[in-house]
Amino acid sequence: MTLEGRFDAADDVVRVGGDARQRYHDSRGYGYPLSGNEIALAPVEAAHLLYRGDLEAVVDVDGGERLGFREFISREPGDDFGVRFLVYADLRSRGFYLSPAAEPWVADPPGGAADFAVFPRGKGPGDGEIAYALRIVGERTDVPAAELRPGVLAVVDEESEITYFEVDRRDPTGSSGADAALPDGCEADLLADRVVVWEPPLELYEKTFYGQPLEGREYDEPTLQCSLLEAAYLAERGAIDLEPATVRERGREVEGERFDRRLRVYAALRERGVVPKTGYKFGADFRTYADVESVENLGHSELLVRVHPAGYVFEPRDLALDVRLAHGVRKTMVFALVGEDSAGGDGIEWWSLERLTP
Amino acid sequence: MTLEGRFDAADDVVRVGGDARQRYHDSRGYGYPLSGNEIALAPVEAAHLLYRGDLEAVVDVDGGERLGFREFISREPGDDFGVRFLVYADLRSRGFYLSPAAEPWVADPPGGAADFAVFPRGKGPGDGEIAYALRIVGERTDVPAAELRPGVLAVVDEESEITYFEVDRRDPTGSSGADAALPDGCEADLLADRVVVWEPPLELYEKTFYGQPLEGREYDEPTLQCSLLEAAYLAERGAIDLEPATVRERGREVEGERFDRRLRVYAALRERGVVPKTGYKFGADFRTYADVESVENLGHSELLVRVHPAGYVFEPRDLALDVRLAHGVRKTMVFALVGEDSAGGDGIEWWSLERLTP
Repeated sequence: MTLEGRFDAADDVVRVGGDARQRYHDSRGYGYPLSGNEIALAPVEAAHLLYRGDLEAVVDVDGGERLGFREFISREPGDDFGVRFLVYADLRSRGFYLSPAAEPWVADPPGGAADFAVFPRGKGPGDGEIAYALRIVGERTDVPAAELRPGVLAVVDEESEITYFEVDRRDPTGSSGADAALPDGCEADLLADRVVVWEPPLELYEKTFYGQPLEGREYDEPTLQCSLLEAAYLAERGAIDLEPATVRERGREVEGERFDRRLRVYAALRERGVVPKTGYKFGADFRTYADVESVENLGHSELLVRVHPAGYVFEPRDLALDVRLAHGVRKTMVFALVGEDSAGGDGIEWWSLERLTP
Repeated sequence: MTLEGRFDAADDVVRVGGDARQRYHDSRGYGYPLSGNEIALAPVEAAHLLYRGDLEAVVDVDGGERLGFREFISREPGDDFGVRFLVYADLRSRGFYLSPAAEPWVADPPGGAADFAVFPRGKGPGDGEIAYALRIVGERTDVPAAELRPGVLAVVDEESEITYFEVDRRDPTGSSGADAALPDGCEADLLADRVVVWEPPLELYEKTFYGQPLEGREYDEPTLQCSLLEAAYLAERGAIDLEPATVRERGREVEGERFDRRLRVYAALRERGVVPKTGYKFGADFRTYADVESVENLGHSELLVRVHPAGYVFEPRDLALDVRLAHGVRKTMVFALVGEDSAGGDGIEWWSLERLTP
């Protein structure tokens, strides 16, 4: 005997009586208990039961209409119903239990903008263990950087394909250059959009990996070409004989306000023992090397870093692009969100996003 | 005996006498002849000869200073000297002859914003055959879409690495759906950001590849989920029973003015026998299939298409990202530039960009 539910748009739940508690809640993790054997279902849960034929129909308490799957979903009950339903159905089909991230579905819901609490495979709502805090967006929904939380972000594209991203804090650390001394006052020339350093000590490139040698010159010490960013950092430390303010000013002429933001991240990475080099070929700001002993024994860079202001708003399409590219070149995508300097910190939040197959 | 040149900033050339004509021009493709054996060199050509030690020095005719390589380049003679020199040196080291894309260096220079004419390997300026029209930009230089020309675009990043792109017109063509008829007035529901089509004929998905089936339902004909774009196209042709204007209005609510632009490109691709599906996972607007007979025998999509207005201005970093990703998934990146409808055309220009190793 299949059951029917009663949908009340006033509080956006579907109530089901009969033996609903045992049938849907206890054994299959839908809804939350009311009095007796009655349960309350979120709209996506009710839609899923209709979809599977487990619930016969849902009666709208206002007008009395009897709604099948089709009629129920075309009412789109609740916000973002379509994308939430698609992800709910996808994760259920992959063998996960999941509940709306709110009381009374879960006792201690994850905060932030989480839509669902997803339980570890084999476990359910009653086991008290959450695997993922899941947020669901359509591909056209803006995601402010301030709303990032550790957990899973599911993006539903316009053709209902779902891409899952694992979002986490990811502070870069490394051991590069811990003992290396910088040279003092190397001669350098400032060109339109780069700097040439004449005859620096070999170690500047070969050990601490600053700059890029110009090829084909017969000198004891190679001529190095540095980016304005590297040059500003070196000038600030007296390693090259340019005025730091002049180099920074040139940097701002070339790339506007991005320059100072990138310079803060560059400096923070160097201070963490990580070597940042340009990420241009990957469309990122930096590619980073965590443990550079010498350029001869250089491995592959591990991270791609993109720099944004703290108030940045992500478009999911750009997230897909960045993360996909990083994955394709076996690196992890990290976003550096640059805010005001805070006491005791560098004002930068580091977040990694990686593709996830649940 | 090495020669010296005379640099005149008034006309930005370096003149060299002695046997310069035979030594630099006739056998090695630098500069253009003046009277007698004298030649004129562009600043990058003179810099390259200084760099290689072939030219001893360049004397500035104004002040009389004798300039070596270092002094000459820190004057940055001419626009964009640094990036032009780096690319000139790179292509020379790869065995190419190249000349400034202007008279009198070449008799029939390529137009547009080309900086150099690059000759086929083994051929020089006198052979009258140009392999590439080469344009050089730094990674921070804007490239208006209106300036795209068939040829090569060299982008020099902040650390002097060079990425070469082959730029060409690339009109998509295909054989998909040439004979297929669309259904008539299938029932459909418009949801917030997608459309559900109820029980359409199987061929709508399986032959003409519209939409995406919802899984797991026991029906003779599958329920299809379509993007607003697909739905607008189908509604305009009476294939589904929604008002075209209503679907388009919803599309604009969801993605603003991009919607109409994407719809024009979607329709143009379908008319060309190409099937466009969403490119979200690749950060593009569409992935396209040229020869779809049935979804069962579907190969891989060949193109990634990104839609821009005709007045768009590219940032080289975004070009690097798009092209790199396309290359990584073995597809070609195509940009669809959407302008005003023109008489007899669809107002769309199609350009492909591919990585090139010269």
